[in-house]
Amino acid sequence: MPELTSVKDALGQLLSAFNRLPAENVSLARALGRVLAEGVSAPLDLPPFTNSGMDGYAVRAADTHPAPQTLTVIGDIPAGLTPELKLYPGQAARIMTGAMLPEGADAVIPIEYTDQPVFDPNQAFPHSITARQSVQPGDFIRPLGQDIRTGQAVLPAGRRLRAQDLGLLASFGFTTLKVVRRPRVALLSTGDELVEPGLPLPPGKIHNSNSVMLGALVRQFGGKVCFQSTVPDQPQAIREMFARALEQSPDLLITSAGVSVGAFDYVRDCIETDGQLTLWRVNMRPGKPLAFGSYQQIPVIGLPGNPVSAFATFQVFVVPVLHTLLGLPAESRPQVTVTLSETIESDGRETYARALVTWQDGAWHARLAEHQGSGNLLSLVRANALLIVPSGVKSLPAQAQATAWWLNADLS
Amino acid sequence: MPELTSVKDALGQLLSAFNRLPAENVSLARALGRVLAEGVSAPLDLPPFTNSGMDGYAVRAADTHPAPQTLTVIGDIPAGLTPELKLYPGQAARIMTGAMLPEGADAVIPIEYTDQPVFDPNQAFPHSITARQSVQPGDFIRPLGQDIRTGQAVLPAGRRLRAQDLGLLASFGFTTLKVVRRPRVALLSTGDELVEPGLPLPPGKIHNSNSVMLGALVRQFGGKVCFQSTVPDQPQAIREMFARALEQSPDLLITSAGVSVGAFDYVRDCIETDGQLTLWRVNMRPGKPLAFGSYQQIPVIGLPGNPVSAFATFQVFVVPVLHTLLGLPAESRPQVTVTLSETIESDGRETYARALVTWQDGAWHARLAEHQGSGNLLSLVRANALLIVPSGVKSLPAQAQATAWWLNADLS
Repeated sequence: MPELTSVKDALGQLLSAFNRLPAENVSLARALGRVLAEGVSAPLDLPPFTNSGMDGYAVRAADTHPAPQTLTVIGDIPAGLTPELKLYPGQAARIMTGAMLPEGADAVIPIEYTDQPVFDPNQAFPHSITARQSVQPGDFIRPLGQDIRTGQAVLPAGRRLRAQDLGLLASFGFTTLKVVRRPRVALLSTGDELVEPGLPLPPGKIHNSNSVMLGALVRQFGGKVCFQSTVPDQPQAIREMFARALEQSPDLLITSAGVSVGAFDYVRDCIETDGQLTLWRVNMRPGKPLAFGSYQQIPVIGLPGNPVSAFATFQVFVVPVLHTLLGLPAESRPQVTVTLSETIESDGRETYARALVTWQDGAWHARLAEHQGSGNLLSLVRANALLIVPSGVKSLPAQAQATAWWLNADLS
Repeated sequence: MPELTSVKDALGQLLSAFNRLPAENVSLARALGRVLAEGVSAPLDLPPFTNSGMDGYAVRAADTHPAPQTLTVIGDIPAGLTPELKLYPGQAARIMTGAMLPEGADAVIPIEYTDQPVFDPNQAFPHSITARQSVQPGDFIRPLGQDIRTGQAVLPAGRRLRAQDLGLLASFGFTTLKVVRRPRVALLSTGDELVEPGLPLPPGKIHNSNSVMLGALVRQFGGKVCFQSTVPDQPQAIREMFARALEQSPDLLITSAGVSVGAFDYVRDCIETDGQLTLWRVNMRPGKPLAFGSYQQIPVIGLPGNPVSAFATFQVFVVPVLHTLLGLPAESRPQVTVTLSETIESDGRETYARALVTWQDGAWHARLAEHQGSGNLLSLVRANALLIVPSGVKSLPAQAQATAWWLNADLS
């Protein structure tokens, strides 16, 4: 039996087989959570013209000294127009937030600082106002280019786009963006014991839970499920499933089950025969039987069939692969240092235990969530983190520190 | 001018106008991130039958003492079938992970503990094996109901569904779930100065950034944009926009701009005339002109037009409303206590400053992101948190502690 590969070495081998995917155009309305393929520089100054920061009166600041001063109002400047008027000494113009400052003005007095503190939409501007406070040149105005200068780099390639980023890009006038194409993932499950949800469960069978769970994980981490199928443990059925999956041009094949040491674990056999098996069995718990290779030049990651093992190996190996395909840092994930509330036993393999992490007395504390059998999905449901017991460690005592990966983040 | 309402009171008034929305059925494949409308109890035991936890040999544990012991292999038990054989003393059966334990067996010996540590998928089971280690009754088996008992409560109403939750629900055989319907949100923007992205920008105009940003925020927090329109600052155009929005049966109307004290701020006027304005102007910065009321019995939240103000008021008021409509705790959000790296000035209003929070020397530190003008979207793009300066505080000194809301979380 070959020696087990360490998690670190296995991940390094995997990642070296992947590069960032090419870009595609998407509309801003559909770009939330997508990853920028190219850095963006400002195509214009923002604000694009000097404008009022308040509803108030455009003035010559000098005219407001000393306060109070009464000024003649010569017109209205609504937002959206180029003002045709020009201010001369002693004059003011009613101006709305965002409206262009008229020639001659160098400041704005908010209406709250005048004797007419409310604008009535149904009434014309007053003939005069009294400025109760003085202003300095530049007060309550937003100069051209104050926020952003043309050519300024504002968003880097590899940025995962948030609502506020999209707002800024819209303010540049963009309607589409170049983002990294979503990784196309084919999900292939095997198992004579599997019955699809919705069908009755004969004795000895279980419902297929991995297809739904892995499909949701692929979507959660920015991929697209381009193919999904479950077949019995028969070499011919498995070969046909691979062939059908390849028709969908996947960037990545993910198999579930069939890679362990069972007599009917034909998936690994199929990869070895028709493709290349470059790695098999990793020194981790759960998830030892992980396989990696290629099938007709397309990378294939073989996950164990046990739901908890499939989940853990997805987090450890598939998430960094999806990140790499998307142009994100491979191993960026929300994590935290925790203090153990109980002793945690391992068998010396790098262990990913389902844990419940809570905040108590100024620190994060972790305990195990339910029993840790690799078939026990309830333990994953109760967990909010994966707690890592390093390779070679057989026991972490209570009060020891450890690293935990949050399992709740990244959910919209 | 009426007194400003505190953020706390304003939020209380808003939330009292909303209840959880009704349930709808969705398929498991589309349920990631949706909120369970009803608690789920297990409809069956898991595992549904006692099965092998390993690839190995089903045995009578007593037969393995003392090790080593040679046993006669009488058959194969693949996963998915009801074994027809029965073990008698001195016998073993080759069994796969997940396969049902045969009558007479009370333990499994993993193949690693035998003299035949590899299963060859192309060869029949051996005539005999030697168990190199002894096992105890129950070893390496997963008893019926070990993980979950029929009737056990496993997921509560109000649970936002993760991939692993969906896996568990699939293992129960469910194909659809009752989840809370997505809030239907109509987005209404006004402004003579607004030009849609993609169109050329005449002098005095700016591109409409709020529609894209608010649309993305609605989707990020679980809502659905059922209507979106931008019209000029004209009462008739605004009334028509409201009428068209109502045809889409929104649960919530969100307006952007037109609620301040400007002479052309007709949105507030329109709500007052045709509906009910129950709240206007909140003691916060940015975002003072926030309005709340109803229009033909549908709740309407009037956000300020400045992009940063619109963003901040969305976070403070709309997010808790969407949470309430979805049946989630109104004010649950990822937050952190930070130490200020610089003095932060305020004007006494409850302030939501755009901040950059970083981890240094074992603590979270915050500083302001760019200049804090309410039109400056770049400051939001650079920020990863909103830092709260409480009401009545005019200055928070460097090294003081404050609360910050993360702006990066919840992104899939």
